[in-house]
Amino acid sequence: MKLATLKDGSRDGQLVVVSRDLASAHYATGIASRMQQVLDDWGFMSPQLQDLYDALNGGRAPHAFPFDPVQCMAPLPRAYQWADGSAYINHVELVRKARNAEVPDSFYIDPLMYQGGSDDFIGPCDPVVVASEAFGIDFEAEIAVITGDVKMGATPAQALDGIRLVMLANDVSLRNLIPAELAKGFGFFQSKPATAFSPVAVTIDELGDAWQGGRVHLTLQSTWNGRKVGMCDAGDEMTFHFGQLVAHIAKTRNVRAGSIVGSGTVSNQDWSHGYSCIAEKRAIETIESGAPRTGFMQFGDTVRIEMKDADGASVFGAIAQKVAPLHPPASDAAPA
Amino acid sequence: MKLATLKDGSRDGQLVVVSRDLASAHYATGIASRMQQVLDDWGFMSPQLQDLYDALNGGRAPHAFPFDPVQCMAPLPRAYQWADGSAYINHVELVRKARNAEVPDSFYIDPLMYQGGSDDFIGPCDPVVVASEAFGIDFEAEIAVITGDVKMGATPAQALDGIRLVMLANDVSLRNLIPAELAKGFGFFQSKPATAFSPVAVTIDELGDAWQGGRVHLTLQSTWNGRKVGMCDAGDEMTFHFGQLVAHIAKTRNVRAGSIVGSGTVSNQDWSHGYSCIAEKRAIETIESGAPRTGFMQFGDTVRIEMKDADGASVFGAIAQKVAPLHPPASDAAPA
Repeated sequence: MKLATLKDGSRDGQLVVVSRDLASAHYATGIASRMQQVLDDWGFMSPQLQDLYDALNGGRAPHAFPFDPVQCMAPLPRAYQWADGSAYINHVELVRKARNAEVPDSFYIDPLMYQGGSDDFIGPCDPVVVASEAFGIDFEAEIAVITGDVKMGATPAQALDGIRLVMLANDVSLRNLIPAELAKGFGFFQSKPATAFSPVAVTIDELGDAWQGGRVHLTLQSTWNGRKVGMCDAGDEMTFHFGQLVAHIAKTRNVRAGSIVGSGTVSNQDWSHGYSCIAEKRAIETIESGAPRTGFMQFGDTVRIEMKDADGASVFGAIAQKVAPLHPPASDAAPA
Repeated sequence: MKLATLKDGSRDGQLVVVSRDLASAHYATGIASRMQQVLDDWGFMSPQLQDLYDALNGGRAPHAFPFDPVQCMAPLPRAYQWADGSAYINHVELVRKARNAEVPDSFYIDPLMYQGGSDDFIGPCDPVVVASEAFGIDFEAEIAVITGDVKMGATPAQALDGIRLVMLANDVSLRNLIPAELAKGFGFFQSKPATAFSPVAVTIDELGDAWQGGRVHLTLQSTWNGRKVGMCDAGDEMTFHFGQLVAHIAKTRNVRAGSIVGSGTVSNQDWSHGYSCIAEKRAIETIESGAPRTGFMQFGDTVRIEMKDADGASVFGAIAQKVAPLHPPASDAAPA
């Protein structure tokens, strides 16, 4: 099934079930009003939502209405955990090669992961608000999962069983803040502003054969200012599958329901597939000609991130955002 | 006022108001059942809770019962953010000096902070569960605040206005996992298991004159296996006050209600005050004699963290935990 959260002025929004073709929606009222409720009590609530989903797809849902992604919050508008991996080691290799750094052997057996802020996610069509273009604004197209409860010490296979929903993410990054921040030794912080997620989150059965071994075997499309810049396969080259990523968290603590875990930037060894973040394009330019030529995003720039199934249908709906300044300039019409 | 959350088998527990002397409590039923609700709607709910608190202290609350810290979850049992600073630069200086590393000048003007996991906090008297003593189990006695909404770009003064509650934290750390983890460049992750918080969180007015300039001017007591090892003043030597720490987060994103922000290990230049984490004791030993002599915590070890006011009364109640193995050994009574 496909689930979304609509804006209603509250912090957690209103849970809706969305039809498979993303055309219509139906409030989940009577079952649950908020996504976290469903994740807290998945076994009891998900069958009821599945029944509503089946009715909606069959044209039998009583109060269906047109689904509008612009009205969406993130499927889980605020979460108790957002842990983002770097599961496509090719991305790490490129970025490191561009600065003449080695990839340690351990990176191939031990996932790289950072803890992100999860109190203020943004919707799929909300603006990316940044104080200054000088921060080096970049998108990062990723896949993310939402988990149920996974116990401390869980194996990757056990962790895989704990995955409830799949969605897309734009893990916005402020590239020019990263070097100084990582040099401090404690990881990303200010360089990772609010993350956006796709309009809908889907259960694993929606992915059919595309979900294999904890990976999504479909193409992730990234479009920057209307130009398609990335058509990266998200499956075969994912070095660590989602069960491994969740198990990495669970090594020293319990992972609780509603934890969101990201794949990191989707990346392919074949550069003709393009890129899922500008930093990677710049890394390739640096490797090829000694310096990056492509600049980061400017105010007014747009990014679109989407994934289609074998039939060309959008699985999660599109993340479609515009970059906007925190303090918009005074109107041109203002007196001089 | 003083607030706590009692275990009731649910994920978020039951909100109670606790008397100033920590002797009695009263369910907040009818006002709010969960702490996050109060933080989401502080202006409306906090005056009602204050009325109940006044009645409880005056012996006029109808259904008061004895307060038992053992029944407490963390005041906010799961949070949308847990960001922990290193606001006592003396701690950073000691740890770096012990490994012959310099403290960069920027550390004195730009707070060091990491994003922690916030989906699975533990109560003040819950065991610290760790898979292996070889992980290097350490306590870290800290002060933490819970915020309301603070907008992106807030100044330290504005951020200070957004602080709602103050409590104590035991930011448990797995020291032997830290070097490899920090070497990966993305900060702490597995080295920071579940954090524990004091039985109660208190509003700023409860601190009276001890709250000045965003700092708590009281002594933080740390007791390890029944021996008082730390009597550190938490006020004057806090390099960055809590408004500065919250503003650090808000530089590139909104900080939303229910965000928990920690001070980092409380530390004094005068070593006679003792230590608030074992790593600091080991750093001092290394500086003095070339190598650490004190080992980390073992299974069965206890830690107690508490802060008393000028009259000797416990402000937050005590964190009192025992270290326990994830997989307890088979009973000694089992047949050989």
